[in-house]
Amino acid sequence: MDIKGRDWNVAPGDSPQLAFYVRKMLERYREEKGVCFLLEPGKYHFYPDYAYEKMLCIPNHEEDTVKRIVFDLSGYEKLHIKGEGAEFIFHGDCIPFYLCGCKEVVLEGLQVDYERPGYSQGIIQKVEERRMEISVDREQFPYYVKGGRVYFCGESDCRELERWLEMDKETKAPAKGLGDREFNLKDGGVNAVYRETAYGMLEISIPDGEEGFSAASHPGNALILRHHPRNCPAFYMENSQNVTLRQVKIFHALAMGVIGWRSENISLEEVSVKRREEKGHIFTTEADAFHFVCCRGWILVKGCLCENQLDDALNVHGIYGRVKQVEEDGSFLLELAHGQQKGVELLRAGETFQCLETEHMESFAEGKVKRAERLNKDYIEVFPQEAVPGLKAGHVVENLDWRPKVTVEGCVFRNNRARGLLCTGIGQAWIKGNTFQTPGAGILIEGDANEWFESGSAQHIVIEDNLFDGCAYIRGWGKAPIQITPRVASPLEGKHFHKKIEIKGNVFRRAHPQALRAYQVGELVWKGNRIEDKEDYQDTGEPVFCVEHVGVWEKDGMEGRQESLRHTQG
Amino acid sequence: MDIKGRDWNVAPGDSPQLAFYVRKMLERYREEKGVCFLLEPGKYHFYPDYAYEKMLCIPNHEEDTVKRIVFDLSGYEKLHIKGEGAEFIFHGDCIPFYLCGCKEVVLEGLQVDYERPGYSQGIIQKVEERRMEISVDREQFPYYVKGGRVYFCGESDCRELERWLEMDKETKAPAKGLGDREFNLKDGGVNAVYRETAYGMLEISIPDGEEGFSAASHPGNALILRHHPRNCPAFYMENSQNVTLRQVKIFHALAMGVIGWRSENISLEEVSVKRREEKGHIFTTEADAFHFVCCRGWILVKGCLCENQLDDALNVHGIYGRVKQVEEDGSFLLELAHGQQKGVELLRAGETFQCLETEHMESFAEGKVKRAERLNKDYIEVFPQEAVPGLKAGHVVENLDWRPKVTVEGCVFRNNRARGLLCTGIGQAWIKGNTFQTPGAGILIEGDANEWFESGSAQHIVIEDNLFDGCAYIRGWGKAPIQITPRVASPLEGKHFHKKIEIKGNVFRRAHPQALRAYQVGELVWKGNRIEDKEDYQDTGEPVFCVEHVGVWEKDGMEGRQESLRHTQG
Repeated sequence: MDIKGRDWNVAPGDSPQLAFYVRKMLERYREEKGVCFLLEPGKYHFYPDYAYEKMLCIPNHEEDTVKRIVFDLSGYEKLHIKGEGAEFIFHGDCIPFYLCGCKEVVLEGLQVDYERPGYSQGIIQKVEERRMEISVDREQFPYYVKGGRVYFCGESDCRELERWLEMDKETKAPAKGLGDREFNLKDGGVNAVYRETAYGMLEISIPDGEEGFSAASHPGNALILRHHPRNCPAFYMENSQNVTLRQVKIFHALAMGVIGWRSENISLEEVSVKRREEKGHIFTTEADAFHFVCCRGWILVKGCLCENQLDDALNVHGIYGRVKQVEEDGSFLLELAHGQQKGVELLRAGETFQCLETEHMESFAEGKVKRAERLNKDYIEVFPQEAVPGLKAGHVVENLDWRPKVTVEGCVFRNNRARGLLCTGIGQAWIKGNTFQTPGAGILIEGDANEWFESGSAQHIVIEDNLFDGCAYIRGWGKAPIQITPRVASPLEGKHFHKKIEIKGNVFRRAHPQALRAYQVGELVWKGNRIEDKEDYQDTGEPVFCVEHVGVWEKDGMEGRQESLRHTQG
Repeated sequence: MDIKGRDWNVAPGDSPQLAFYVRKMLERYREEKGVCFLLEPGKYHFYPDYAYEKMLCIPNHEEDTVKRIVFDLSGYEKLHIKGEGAEFIFHGDCIPFYLCGCKEVVLEGLQVDYERPGYSQGIIQKVEERRMEISVDREQFPYYVKGGRVYFCGESDCRELERWLEMDKETKAPAKGLGDREFNLKDGGVNAVYRETAYGMLEISIPDGEEGFSAASHPGNALILRHHPRNCPAFYMENSQNVTLRQVKIFHALAMGVIGWRSENISLEEVSVKRREEKGHIFTTEADAFHFVCCRGWILVKGCLCENQLDDALNVHGIYGRVKQVEEDGSFLLELAHGQQKGVELLRAGETFQCLETEHMESFAEGKVKRAERLNKDYIEVFPQEAVPGLKAGHVVENLDWRPKVTVEGCVFRNNRARGLLCTGIGQAWIKGNTFQTPGAGILIEGDANEWFESGSAQHIVIEDNLFDGCAYIRGWGKAPIQITPRVASPLEGKHFHKKIEIKGNVFRRAHPQALRAYQVGELVWKGNRIEDKEDYQDTGEPVFCVEHVGVWEKDGMEGRQESLRHTQG
């Protein structure tokens, strides 16, 4: 059934009413299956005033509280929203699209942007060790200085500048030799003093004794000025199945572009996280472009562009809950340990979990959940069908029922803060025909139970026919274009956290020697890859391969196979 | 049925487990009626770790988000908790008691305090116009200085100092000639610079051009250092009936002491909001001692002490919702206008409301609610049974079904920030035999639709046999011991916002001439009151009475009655 947005006053316009009309339209058809909303081209301004509001704990996001939502598609089945190029411009803190309990949803031909992005931008005019002058377009990025601090103004709130990232004026990518800088945080960052020297000209002074500006900072480079929490992703789906985003452009989001939680079969086809060039923006989303936590089925990311977002391009992982205490009856308290993973439903009745100790990251038991009760954002009380022998405080627990297959194909990942793809807790992954131009690792395969609590081991990953172009030039974000470094403190002989990883037919245009760093892989294949040097290649003295604690290491030109080959230099 | 707490491990102790045991005990008996929990004497430490968590929008509080709750008594009927002097010490941000949908609950013989209060305290050592030195007990009130700002540390978070209130070293009350001071707020306050000159010695400098320290500041005076939001009241009851707190001591709360919303018949008997003298605390609760919004039935406050809390002793009021827009079908959008009243359920199906215009504050229509839908924290969509003629944007709407009778008897209100009693939106009130030693008005009867949106008119208030001892010496918090000043911009001849107020047999030991300021009262009676001068009485040249726009003004010694008597001087 085709429904024209215009028939519900959902048409290009600029009024808080528009979000109210969206509500009326969505409420009318929520119970019906097979609806297609047709939204004509043009600019739609959506304000949070009359928008939906829900209490959300979004994994890997901040601020677990009530959030405003413009398109709350919860419960919709067999839904198609056809944007026909509709440009959605959001105002204030709100989530454009929320999908909860949805089935068979296609969102197509849409653009998402914000009138006033969560971040601002400046251009370095002058830089010395303890003093910098930057210009800021005050119309686009309004701010004021008070008491030596600078506050940037959104549409409804002003927030203090907390961090910045310097971007190279030529490449539009994070500038070499730099990285994140923090200012005036209560628990970190240098204590900078701001002063406005002329309209739109900010002087930043750093007192003696604190870390001054780097010689790698250059006039003409742009600064991405960060003063907003990662609270509102553009698309958030949870407990949903068969969701497709197609030909969607995300120019900005107040957090991630697309985040999925406990969802199944998700396709991103020609989804671009893209710089708004006509506004001169050097940034896109505030955080990762795409991110899937505890999902399953098949995640397809095809023909997508992710550039200049303020965190990784794609991260797929599970969550390790940390055992806080075990009761006599075998029930145990599980802690959601990482601050951005609070409040999620890690385990549900009937699901299978496995238990690991954190020294060797070895699974020692599996179990099934009889009942799981959420105590609060931090703790879940788990009643297993049978008590788990040996389980004790400090162990971690992972849900085994939610591990997806992943295909990433024909995508471009470039110029963002940090890494390209992060894959843990997946069954199989095919990463084919993509271009990685990331300052950190192109592909990072980790897994840890002490910092991020992103689980778990990968079964089989194929990395094929990709171009890694100058990756990992900011070493704080990655040691090599492909980095496999699960955090296993004491590996056991013959045991490996990740199972099988094949790297075939890729081209590495390297910024420095290292192409592959691999640790704790059961079977590692390196075949038919080509290594070239970029024009600014720097020989750091490192080996091309740093391979450690690998079971089988199969490599062209190597005679046969070698067990636990080690040629690293720390 | 008597249940011993100890049988559920709810006994004196200091462990996060204790709050978990409370949950287990409460869950076991929630469906049973007639339970009496007996809690033996001793110190109980409650931590938020395993506490309940609920999304709460508490009226007149901040942070409408998930809150931790230790005793979640929701749904309990015929419950008695008998503390027998049990001392409850709470840790971190949590609400000690939450009552939702409760009936016939008695909480008795309890003490509430926090290990680390939300506020800190300092003593002025030296004060000049642009420089102050204060000593702070760093063990009791840990802090650090970074970048010229001072951060006070709670058990789980550090927060910047935002405000302080100076307390007289002799009287332990807000110091004369002073009031609230704000520092380093992003949108206000002087830009103070902090420096630690020695262990526990803080120097505060105020730059030239900003408001310096007052000559009324004195060494030896204590400062209440405010760096915590008003987020967790000690007792919050909503949608509850027949609740009694008896012999309860509240030494501290991270917001108000007791707050009621949409509740009926509440008794506070011998409830003390009291300074913890052995810790040397000069403060008690972070905000009002007692506060009731949109309640009904009978509110009894008897034999209570409220001292040194950081806002009024008791405030009883309704809420004006502001009409945002009216649809053709007569439905209208109602805005919860004040930032601390967001998210509350102002109207429910079947309830009666009245509509006022805000120029004269005159009711022009009544209606009944057919359906009310919460759009979000800010807006409610109201479908009246019949369209309200003349209703338009800017009008305000008040719920008429929730207006209590109030008795306040034999209480002492002293040394707090601001006022004693605030009464609006009540049927009848008897305020008898109390002692008011408040720096602001002892009794303030307002009502406004432009700032606080605290509704509505009082029907009949009797103020009898009270002692007003030096009230209103800080004029920013009240012009007279009794102040009746609803905000009616253009009063209409013969119309009065408040109906009848009788002031009889009270003693006024006055700090300055004015005893009564009254505006917009239908019938005002002044009979048998005695006015004395305090030793430090200051003649400000004001009249004793400032009475304006009063219908009938009956006063001893006056011949008969006078219409609209005016003897004010602005």
